[in-house]
Amino acid sequence: MSHHKGFILWFTGMSGAGKSTLAELLAQEFKSRGYRVELLDGDEVRTHLSKGLSFSREDRDTNVRRIGWVARLLARNGVIAITAAISPYREVRDEIRAVADAEGCEAFVEVFASAPVAALAERDVKGLYKKALAGEIKNFTGISDPYEPPEHPEVTAFTSGESIQESVDRILKYLTEQKLIGAA
Amino acid sequence: MSHHKGFILWFTGMSGAGKSTLAELLAQEFKSRGYRVELLDGDEVRTHLSKGLSFSREDRDTNVRRIGWVARLLARNGVIAITAAISPYREVRDEIRAVADAEGCEAFVEVFASAPVAALAERDVKGLYKKALAGEIKNFTGISDPYEPPEHPEVTAFTSGESIQESVDRILKYLTEQKLIGAA
Repeated sequence: MSHHKGFILWFTGMSGAGKSTLAELLAQEFKSRGYRVELLDGDEVRTHLSKGLSFSREDRDTNVRRIGWVARLLARNGVIAITAAISPYREVRDEIRAVADAEGCEAFVEVFASAPVAALAERDVKGLYKKALAGEIKNFTGISDPYEPPEHPEVTAFTSGESIQESVDRILKYLTEQKLIGAA
Repeated sequence: MSHHKGFILWFTGMSGAGKSTLAELLAQEFKSRGYRVELLDGDEVRTHLSKGLSFSREDRDTNVRRIGWVARLLARNGVIAITAAISPYREVRDEIRAVADAEGCEAFVEVFASAPVAALAERDVKGLYKKALAGEIKNFTGISDPYEPPEHPEVTAFTSGESIQESVDRILKYLTEQKLIGAA
């Protein structure tokens, strides 16, 4: 069963909210089904596409637009393009969705990795929230920089209140219902 | 007949040497055969991936590496990725070839669009050579900046001494012989 469409699966959410974990599990699932999939992770993209860009709003938007351009190139060639950058600003996410729609992209599926800042700061896997709260990191999304949650995400993953597997299953269910992927 | 492999068709050559013309004709030919193809043109890539980069050696190399990264993503998903940036430095072209090979890319086909500077300056379609020779453009490849021709290109297109169709045919012949594309 290797039938699927080319589309964009766009994760957004704060640092530590589970974007990369969810994206990697889904990429593995798709690979195991023989699907064509590419994961454009935030850090990897910064290395290959956006070295030298800062975390100012303008540079973040530039970075996110570049990810969007590559994701569109892949999706229109039949690939499932998964992105997992914070992508904090609603306007640029919506812009990418609009361009993808206008170009005839099968789907722009926005997945909101949602968790309260308090929960993220308490877990603080990478120790970044502690530093940000102490003022040691400038432009830290959710602390010293805005995070604008999506108003109409296709799927929300409540990563502090449900298991990762529950989130993964809900995303797979949505994609199957939309006939973007075949039934497992 | 829509059988083809995913590979990189990398044009290199000076401004006006015919890279974009050849790349566009080949992209059209592939599309008419129902192939998956993407053309990463130098100017388009500068807009989407590399706005703000200068024409210093370091920034040119960064730009070319980004094109290489996107081309590899596409090629490994079965797409014919055609690039048409000047890409003046041999070292970074060879680096991209080596990474593509190491990743198992089917082929990195380097096509040298070859024409003497004198011929390009005489034709001077965009009027750039005149300005460069007058010192009005800094870092102009072939005049005030180096161009390092490939030592072992898979194909050379002698764009000042043969017709565009002859060059196109030679490239198609090479790709067919290598079984990267099916016979027309």
